[in-house]
Parts: sequence; structure tokens; C-alpha cells
Amino acid sequence: MTAHNTNWDNEHFFHPWEGMETLGQNDRAYIEGGEGIYVRNDRGERLMDGPAGMWCVQVGYGREEIADAMADQARQLAYFSPFNNTSSISTRFAHEIARRAPGDLNNVFFTTGGSTAVDTAIRFVHFRNNLMGRPEKKIIISRQKAYHGSTYLAASVSGKERDRLWLDKADHLSHFLPNVNPLHRSDGQSIDAFLDEKIADLENAILTLGADKVAAFIAEPILASGGVIVPPKGYHKRCLEVCHRHDVLYISDEVVTAFGRLGHWFASEDVFGIQPDIITCAKGMTSGYVPMGAAIVSDRLIADLTGMGATFSNGYTYSGHPVSAAAGLKSMEIIERDGLLEHVQALSPLFQERLSSLQDIDIVVDTRGMGFMGCVECSADGSKDALLDQDYAIGALIDEECQKRGLLVRPLINMCVTSPPLIMSADQINQMFDILETGIKTAADRRGA
Amino acid sequence: MTAHNTNWDNEHFFHPWEGMETLGQNDRAYIEGGEGIYVRNDRGERLMDGPAGMWCVQVGYGREEIADAMADQARQLAYFSPFNNTSSISTRFAHEIARRAPGDLNNVFFTTGGSTAVDTAIRFVHFRNNLMGRPEKKIIISRQKAYHGSTYLAASVSGKERDRLWLDKADHLSHFLPNVNPLHRSDGQSIDAFLDEKIADLENAILTLGADKVAAFIAEPILASGGVIVPPKGYHKRCLEVCHRHDVLYISDEVVTAFGRLGHWFASEDVFGIQPDIITCAKGMTSGYVPMGAAIVSDRLIADLTGMGATFSNGYTYSGHPVSAAAGLKSMEIIERDGLLEHVQALSPLFQERLSSLQDIDIVVDTRGMGFMGCVECSADGSKDALLDQDYAIGALIDEECQKRGLLVRPLINMCVTSPPLIMSADQINQMFDILETGIKTAADRRGA
Repeated sequence: MTAHNTNWDNEHFFHPWEGMETLGQNDRAYIEGGEGIYVRNDRGERLMDGPAGMWCVQVGYGREEIADAMADQARQLAYFSPFNNTSSISTRFAHEIARRAPGDLNNVFFTTGGSTAVDTAIRFVHFRNNLMGRPEKKIIISRQKAYHGSTYLAASVSGKERDRLWLDKADHLSHFLPNVNPLHRSDGQSIDAFLDEKIADLENAILTLGADKVAAFIAEPILASGGVIVPPKGYHKRCLEVCHRHDVLYISDEVVTAFGRLGHWFASEDVFGIQPDIITCAKGMTSGYVPMGAAIVSDRLIADLTGMGATFSNGYTYSGHPVSAAAGLKSMEIIERDGLLEHVQALSPLFQERLSSLQDIDIVVDTRGMGFMGCVECSADGSKDALLDQDYAIGALIDEECQKRGLLVRPLINMCVTSPPLIMSADQINQMFDILETGIKTAADRRGA
Repeated sequence: MTAHNTNWDNEHFFHPWEGMETLGQNDRAYIEGGEGIYVRNDRGERLMDGPAGMWCVQVGYGREEIADAMADQARQLAYFSPFNNTSSISTRFAHEIARRAPGDLNNVFFTTGGSTAVDTAIRFVHFRNNLMGRPEKKIIISRQKAYHGSTYLAASVSGKERDRLWLDKADHLSHFLPNVNPLHRSDGQSIDAFLDEKIADLENAILTLGADKVAAFIAEPILASGGVIVPPKGYHKRCLEVCHRHDVLYISDEVVTAFGRLGHWFASEDVFGIQPDIITCAKGMTSGYVPMGAAIVSDRLIADLTGMGATFSNGYTYSGHPVSAAAGLKSMEIIERDGLLEHVQALSPLFQERLSSLQDIDIVVDTRGMGFMGCVECSADGSKDALLDQDYAIGALIDEECQKRGLLVRPLINMCVTSPPLIMSADQINQMFDILETGIKTAADRRGA
């Protein structure tokens, strides 16, 4: 247990998504330690980490090897300027990423996280269209419930309603397609008909806006913080076909899905059968041990610009940071050596089966997921007509009941999300869902009482 | 010397400010090690690091203590989600920063670097004006030659002409004031008259655009990558007065100047006598050992919003990262324990005197700087009418000649910038300027030949 002044968090640490109503009066839990799939709070309680930090601690906490790799690199060379120079550790990491990325996605533009990866991807697409003599081709098509980050530009293509209420967006650069969650299809509509509708939504948007105005489509393979929304089978492939038919680029935002979350280095091709034009990633890239992100650009896109007298004036002091690269390489080595991709593939059926069975609980209206990603959505009576999508209390109640029993979950309004470290064993998966089941039932009882 | 495949850099590492003309055909120097004020390339050559990486390696390379602090933290807790939780290491760093920041700048919003710090600062200013019922008050006034980062929004308020050529900007949100470099004042114009003109530029811009449209003024205390431009004495204070007279916020971008570069934790108040409304910082914050940045917001600004039912939907997975906080706290401890602020204060006169004396060289038209920041600007004949401000060759030649003699400088078109680690001794400062002097003279001879 570490000594700390309990006021400092409220007085000095201005948090992400800080609510002005409770500003300076929060009672946030102090997380002070971690080992494997567990974190420890300042009261010494050990909690199973359902969200893996925030979809990121792939290889689990307390990995001596990563700590050592970071320290060794910091001792040897803690920094170099990627503007003027390079370093073997970072070129090697770029190579190892490119080797695992689909097709000709060979050019790794390092950033400081997911938001700057998306910001960079969009700026590159715009830059390219400027150089190709089509400066009007700039709109990015995104989707309701999408989350792509929180720089001004990344937030502009994010479609979570609540986040759009009080902050400005570059609205002229974005267009949003309706929700792709099959839960919300019309009564009696088949999944196939719903899928046809979603594909038509994309193509109609391109035709209405004009293909000469639309630069790219950006999509998470599975919409993560929007509520683990899994589009119908075949969705991604058909979207890519529509995009390429109209000369629109496909940016696959794999900040959550890459580096093993779905049992593969990247999900775009291995899970969904597509080779996008750009992939963005972060989080699992270093198992969250140190900040880093990347936009991985295909050779095709670059080839159009080669030899032009122009500079892509974009990048960061910390692009390709050697300590981040060292952590990323070591995390990659652990994932490979310990067979974590195969482990996730092998245990996903159990994970998803346990998740599905939560639907037997009265207030659960939907469960959905893939790989080591899952979401439980609640409604007042278990019907989609009674969705509690404005009810923040139910998620918080479930979180509270689960924490009492040793599990941290991520409450998202009326949903609970789980995306644990990839090292979770079969027994631990069962334990996690046992607690979640009891937590939801108890929360439902308290709510009803 | 580390083994590496020499093609990987060209094939896979897409660098910041990558030129399309030379894409895939670069021959970048590999920096592989560092100790104190020196870095080592892959040929085993030791070079004095003139730019301190990129204005960031304050305490020098190879600090065991920082490597250990990072590793210890990574072993104990490598990550926590700042969205839902907190941790004592990060609250402590927020506290230590707030304690050193001027006046009531007490709220530290952690980001992943300087660009995201500026992006966050501007988004917060816009958010605040939305909540205060003045959604039209959004324009950010900046200056020619300013550099504030490379997210779309941060780049939109950056005024380096070349960076604005090929990429899009949110032009409706920005307005640029003319160059504040006294070198470019009219013939016969006094410094005082030039200063009056610069202050009038700001006030006229606010009046012309309308104070109801202008949200903030953003300014580096010394324009760093724009060429170490030091505005006339009194400039900042008078700018702040103008801003506050018109209800315009002052964002002081201290990404380069904070954490000791000018001999103080922050330069805004201690060097320039102002208490800005927001300070942005990064780089020296962790001595560059790991990515981190922050926007430090004053209590006054927050107070206006307290209790409002709104969420500041901005922030990053890596906001307040515990490993970054550990590196930052240790770097801060070293700066304090080793008296580096006092050291910079004591040696700045020598540094600036040696810098000034370079003006005796024929092709040098101007030298300027403060603290441990300096810039040498060249012209064909030493007059400002013959400025080589389109001549990239001269900076590159000087860089080449200095490197031969064991010094890395940062060439910026016709300028050379130096901003070494804060630990540089008097002897080393003399050595550095000896080499720079010979390098410039030799480059001038080669150019003339």
C-alpha cells in the first residue's frame, strides 16, 4: 500500500471524461498494484481485472521481462529524434508489425496512442488527396456508436451521442451511418435483410455525398466502447467492396482488436477476410505498459505519392519512442512464446458460451461478443422495448456487486463490458462469469426492490 | 553496436515529416546509445547532443535512476484506467506539477505529448465557451512561425508556412499574427516601436475578429522550432493584459520552455512575469524517457463550470500513465537534487555570450536565445536582406561539418538550433560552441567555393 494524500486526486488530477457536476468531489478507487489478471487497490483488495485496464493489458500485470526490457532500453538509449534519425529498436518493431499486418500494409507511422493514430490516418488520407489533385475528396464516413479517439479530428469521426453533446466537431468532414447492431433491426427483419440494409446505407451515403467528396470509411471491426457491437457476418467484406468500387479508402481501426484480442495479431484479414488500406492500432501493441500507437499504411497508397515534392508534415516527438518499441517487442515476444493467440482461440468458445448463458437472467436483453470481448446489455424486463439505455445506475450497480465479489467490470450506462488479459485460464473465465452472473442478478434484485 | 537490417528503416518506419521525394531512399543515422550529453551512432562514434534529442533530454542520457523507477513501476502496476480509477503515483505527479506551476494553475490534464496537450487545451476552451452560452467564441489567435503540434487541431494553430502547404487545417478556428522576430522590424524602427506594433497586432486582431468570436491566444514564450524567436522584453505581459481586457484566454505553450530549459520549472511567470490561464507542457516533463504531456488549467476556468451537468469528453487511454508519471517524478527529483535549474541560471550567461559571438562570422546574420536555447541564422553576406531562408543546403552543411567534429546540431533550413541537456558543463558549452564556430566557418567556405 502506497501512502498518498487523498485530496490530490480531486485537487490536481483532471481526469478524462471528467464530469463537471462532481468535479473535485470524486471518490475514485486507487489502483496500486497488479499481478497476472489481478489488480490490487489501496485497501489491499485483489480484483480480477475484467477490462484489462482498458482493453490493453494483453499479457497481464507484473511482467518482469517487459519492465527489464524498458529499463535496459532506457539505460542504453532513452530517446532519439525520429525527425532526423532512426534507431534499430524502433525499425525492428516497425518490421515486426509490418510482417504481421495484412497484405501490403508495410509502412508503420508510430504515434502516441489510438487517438493520434486515427488523427494521423485521416490527415494522411487528406494529404494524399491534396497531392492527387482532388482536394474536395475529404469526407470520412463513420458509424453511430463508433469510438475513434478524442483529438478534435478523431472525435469528429466518433459517433457516441453523449460525447458529442458539449464539444465541437469538424462536422463538414464526417458523415455517420445508422447503428449496425442487429439487436436494433426491425421486428421480423432477418439478419440477411438487416445486413443488406447496412451495406445499402454505406453505398447510398457515398452516392448521396458524392464519391468525389468521400475520402474514406473508418470502422472498428467490432465497435468496442460503443458496446461491443458485432456486425452481421460478411459485413466487412461487403463494405470493403463498396468502398473500393467507389474509390473510397477503408481505414480499419484495430486499436482494440489487434494484438490478440480476437486470437490474431490483426483481426481485419484473419477474422473478417479483408485487407484494409490503413490499420490503426495502439493499446495491446505494448500491452499498455507504455504509451504507443500506429497508423499502418499500405504500399499502394504510398506508391501514388512517391517522388512528389511534398512533405507529410505530421508526427510526434515520441513517434517510434525506443522505450515504447522495447516494451512492444517484448510483449509481442511473450504473446508468441506463450502461445497466447492460440490460447485465445482455444478458450473463446468457453468465454462466449458463458457470456451467452447470461441471457437467461431476467433483465438481460442481449449478450454479444467475440474472442475475449463481451458485453451484457440490460433492459427493465429483458425486452428490447424496455432498454435501459439512459440508465447509468444499473451498470454502476452491477459494477458494485461484482467488485464486492472480487471482479472489476467496465460499466457503460446499461451495459457491462469484459475484455480480460489474454492469459486468463478456463477456470478463471468460469470464475469471472460466475461473479458476473451473481452480480447482475443481485443488482437486478436491488433495482427491483 | 546493435545488429539491424539497414532496409527496415526505409521499408517499414514511416517517419514524421517524411518527404515523399526521398521516400524509401533515406540514409538516416542510427542512434544506438547515449550517456550524459552524448549519443552514440551505429558506427560507434560519440556525438555531443546539441538538441537534447528534440528539446527534451533535460537530465541527459543513461540515467539508471529513471530506468529503475520506470521498471519498478512497471513491475508494481504498469497500467490503470484513468477513466474509472486513479493511482497514487499519478496523483502525486499531478500534485508536484501543480505545486510548481504559476498561480492557480492547479488542474493537470495528462496527455501523451505536446500535440495532444494543445489539442486538449483548445478543446477545453471551446467546451467551456459552449457551457458558458457563447458558442461563437472559438477563434484561436496564434502567430507566424509558431509550432504547437501536429494533430489536426494543434496543426491548425501552427504557423510555419512550409507545414501548411500540403495538409488541411481548420482555418475558421485560427488567425495568425505577423512575425514577432525583432530581426524583421522595419529599417530604423526601434525595438520599442516594434513591440508597440506587435501588441497592436494582437489587439487589432481581437477587435477586427470581434472579442465575442476570439476564445484564446496561444503562444510559446520563445518560439522554438520556428527558430528560437525571442519577442521583445515586456511582450508577454502586455499580450496578457490585452487578452484579459477583452476576455480572451492566454494559453502559454511551454512544451519546450518548461522543466528547466530557461532555468525555471515554468518560464511563464518566473521569466516573463505572467500567469497564463492554461499552460501546455511535454518533452522535459519526463526528460523524454517516456511519452507524456499535460494541459494545466487554472482553478478560475474550472470554477465557472463546477456543478454543470456536462462531461468534458476528452482524454486518452494513456492519460496519467503510471510508468510515465514514475519517470517524470524521478526526472523532477534529479533536476531538484542536482540543482539543474540553478546550474542553467548560472551558465546561461556563458551559453548566450558564446552564442552571440558567432555573429562575427561573415554569413551569420543573427543569433538569438535565452537560457539553454540558441539559434544561429545565416544569410549570404551577413545582412538580413540576403537571408537564406529558402536554402536548406546551408543548415545541412553546418550539421555535416559539426558532426565530423563530434557535435549533433539541429538544422532548420538556414538556421542551426542548439538546446542541449541541462547538465552541460562550462567546459562542454565552450567545446560545443568551438565546434559550431568551426562548423559554420567551414560550411561557409564550402558554400562559397
